Amino acid sequence: MAKEQKKVEAITAMDVDFAQWYTDIVRKADLADYSGIKGCTILRPYGYAIWENIQRQLDARFKETGHENVAMPLFIPESLLQKEKDHVEGFAPEVAWVTHGGSEKLQERICVRPTSETLFCEHYANIIQSYRDLPKLYNQWCSVVRWEKTTRPFLRTTEFWWQEGHTAHATAEEAEEETVRMLNVYADFCQDVLSIPVIKGEKTEKERFAGAKSTYTIESLMHDGKALQSGTSHNFGDGFARAFGIQYTDKDNQLQYVHQTSWGMSTRIIGAIIMVHGDDNGLVLPPKIAPTQVIIVPIMMNKPEVQEKALELNELLGKNLRVKTDLSDHTPGWKFSEYEMKGVPLRLEIGPKDIEKNQAVLVRRDTGEKEFVSLDDIESRVNALMDEIQANLLEKARISRDSKTYSAKTMEEFEKTLDETPGFVKAMWCGDRACEDEIKEKTGATSRCIPFEQEEISDTCICCGKKAKKMVYWGRAY
Amino acid sequence: MAKEQKKVEAITAMDVDFAQWYTDIVRKADLADYSGIKGCTILRPYGYAIWENIQRQLDARFKETGHENVAMPLFIPESLLQKEKDHVEGFAPEVAWVTHGGSEKLQERICVRPTSETLFCEHYANIIQSYRDLPKLYNQWCSVVRWEKTTRPFLRTTEFWWQEGHTAHATAEEAEEETVRMLNVYADFCQDVLSIPVIKGEKTEKERFAGAKSTYTIESLMHDGKALQSGTSHNFGDGFARAFGIQYTDKDNQLQYVHQTSWGMSTRIIGAIIMVHGDDNGLVLPPKIAPTQVIIVPIMMNKPEVQEKALELNELLGKNLRVKTDLSDHTPGWKFSEYEMKGVPLRLEIGPKDIEKNQAVLVRRDTGEKEFVSLDDIESRVNALMDEIQANLLEKARISRDSKTYSAKTMEEFEKTLDETPGFVKAMWCGDRACEDEIKEKTGATSRCIPFEQEEISDTCICCGKKAKKMVYWGRAY
Repeated sequence: MAKEQKKVEAITAMDVDFAQWYTDIVRKADLADYSGIKGCTILRPYGYAIWENIQRQLDARFKETGHENVAMPLFIPESLLQKEKDHVEGFAPEVAWVTHGGSEKLQERICVRPTSETLFCEHYANIIQSYRDLPKLYNQWCSVVRWEKTTRPFLRTTEFWWQEGHTAHATAEEAEEETVRMLNVYADFCQDVLSIPVIKGEKTEKERFAGAKSTYTIESLMHDGKALQSGTSHNFGDGFARAFGIQYTDKDNQLQYVHQTSWGMSTRIIGAIIMVHGDDNGLVLPPKIAPTQVIIVPIMMNKPEVQEKALELNELLGKNLRVKTDLSDHTPGWKFSEYEMKGVPLRLEIGPKDIEKNQAVLVRRDTGEKEFVSLDDIESRVNALMDEIQANLLEKARISRDSKTYSAKTMEEFEKTLDETPGFVKAMWCGDRACEDEIKEKTGATSRCIPFEQEEISDTCICCGKKAKKMVYWGRAY
Repeated sequence: MAKEQKKVEAITAMDVDFAQWYTDIVRKADLADYSGIKGCTILRPYGYAIWENIQRQLDARFKETGHENVAMPLFIPESLLQKEKDHVEGFAPEVAWVTHGGSEKLQERICVRPTSETLFCEHYANIIQSYRDLPKLYNQWCSVVRWEKTTRPFLRTTEFWWQEGHTAHATAEEAEEETVRMLNVYADFCQDVLSIPVIKGEKTEKERFAGAKSTYTIESLMHDGKALQSGTSHNFGDGFARAFGIQYTDKDNQLQYVHQTSWGMSTRIIGAIIMVHGDDNGLVLPPKIAPTQVIIVPIMMNKPEVQEKALELNELLGKNLRVKTDLSDHTPGWKFSEYEMKGVPLRLEIGPKDIEKNQAVLVRRDTGEKEFVSLDDIESRVNALMDEIQANLLEKARISRDSKTYSAKTMEEFEKTLDETPGFVKAMWCGDRACEDEIKEKTGATSRCIPFEQEEISDTCICCGKKAKKMVYWGRAY
């Protein structure tokens, strides 16, 4: 029987149907699959390998800033979830409830964690006694569950994977410093590792995390002009500490409440990678998180010298990079499409003619540029290209984001901009919840953040016309 | 106010109360803590750091043998769990059932995974079509839940952390090879990384994993003479494939069922580390998994040259090793006990007199031996000691295990041995379940494994006196 060639089918073009384009990439780049439970996805090896690269590099940044990993239980008793009233109101409507263990009915319902503030608080109340026990800088990598009605892979799923940092500090100042520090860790990570530029700012009260005193956020912009909240950092003040009784004895022997923070980034960010860098040929991955950074495709593979040279190059480049050689019996054309779909940053082609000329062909995924490189220079050129591609993706994303960032001085302008040229709209706001609600109702746009870098677009609120307090980034969002 | 010195309290001696000794180490070495949910523990930073070192090194071995990581959902629908009848009988009595999502009652109950065979099978049925899709060599790192009545940290907890490998192969031979390969990966890992010698063998039918055709196991022996199952590898044959319809088209265009395996190692192994290497001063960690391999304790720390030299040594040794310097204001004596409790393999003391003599003091945790080493040789000596300690712990554990391994030819001898000198008892068995049940009832010992390396202790079954088929390791177990 003749061997089947698995076809690399074309994906829906972005401009034709952006949502379908997204789904096509998720499926055809083998990132994720659906499971039998509504809204629960499977992270397939290629998708999970991206997550592992994210984890490794983010975790190193957490450890550099003094954090330690722990593992908390998966379950929260109902009474524990209810201890902080804003928090329970925010999460109780969307948790999964366990009512039976084996054949026994439980005396108290327990939920599968939607987030673990309450668990960390209970633990901190047990282990913190003195100022010498502070700060506690904990993090955990796990999955959490929120019972969602409509779901999309990576962007909104019932179960998702994330990290959640939870810290306790002696003073309000230290907690505030930590909240900002971790927001900066996220922002730098997005820019340096994922090549995704972000806007840093504070959420309005309406958009704050349930139970937080303030929530900081990084916001990124997708190809289709929609915003995506990419990481958040919350300052809880002493609210949770009072609800859970987390107190320490200070240097003057006085009992004080701790001040707490939490911060998280999730597999959602993989959705951002797809929608910031992807194109009509598939995924485009920044080298720093690509599971395979260089794919070697031998041309006329049945010639032994070709295979031999390909494997030799694999060994040479593999010293510093994640390199693979595809020796399968697919055609070179099939392989080109396959690794374009998977977003491999660089393709190296090597055939008999190249060997004769002591060269190889390099093709960049980000620009499609092709160059012939002497085998004597191949190692340094490939390594240099990794940096160039990484930087170019960030630059491209920045240009795209900036070109979709507008400002508006009137509601008419605001609505027109969002309808005709979706993106971020910068506009002034009086600070009233009523105006924020009205803007959302009229336009579908939410306040993304009050950016740390303020500009004065005008001096009146775009909605009510009263004196403006802040410039806000608005947008329709995932 | 004078600063409190946190006291390193003595732990219960092993000979006085082994169970209490174990619990004392778990608590006083800051490995784990209890949570508000019965049987669910918290892995504290020090305990989790050991688990991270285990994960990193085990994961590297999985990847070297061609495995890929994935993430499966946390939930299994009841109907999916029921597809393979032996499997559901084994697990249904001990799962946690989710009945509500938010305020809605679910149409079908779902359970929190006790193990994920059924989820992998459903996924494999979707993604495997042709022989070219095989083998599938997947693994996942996650936690699972089994509703346990009595629990002990690491050894038996309602939620525990583990990895579960799940593979699908074209032939029975390949599945069998994989099952044995992964058992060997576990055995080598235990011996090379954890310094724990293990007996490799097959479980009897009675002790097999629910749904498996054969279960292989590695068994280790604790200080108190009880056995601990330390890792298992299961061959499912095509049983699950038939139940879930996992078929592929072979080279001759015929539909065939796949053959599957699964294998797992869990945080239970941390219990083994405690009970194989620990002593009355606390935990003893093999260097390869110790979160801190060398602790530097400055003596007369207020002298600036002492601090300076300590930090200089930290930098030098920290190039290759995980090194910490304790600059806290605790006394040196407190620090000595603290890091003994935490099982740090090597302590380096440096004081003004040592600096004068251009030397440092090294104290081994495993033997208590103290040596003076010239600072000129310190790097090579410390690195060499890491290997020596690693090897010595394995050797000590092997001697201890062998000294507690007995053989018996009669039931009287068998019972007497177990009562007077707990350990492994090697004895012959006819292969009948009835004898296995009777032995357990009479002595509390279970068949640990039918070792791959067989010996002939006698030629009749120790229980019924009929012709013996196999030599079995028996023991009371955790």
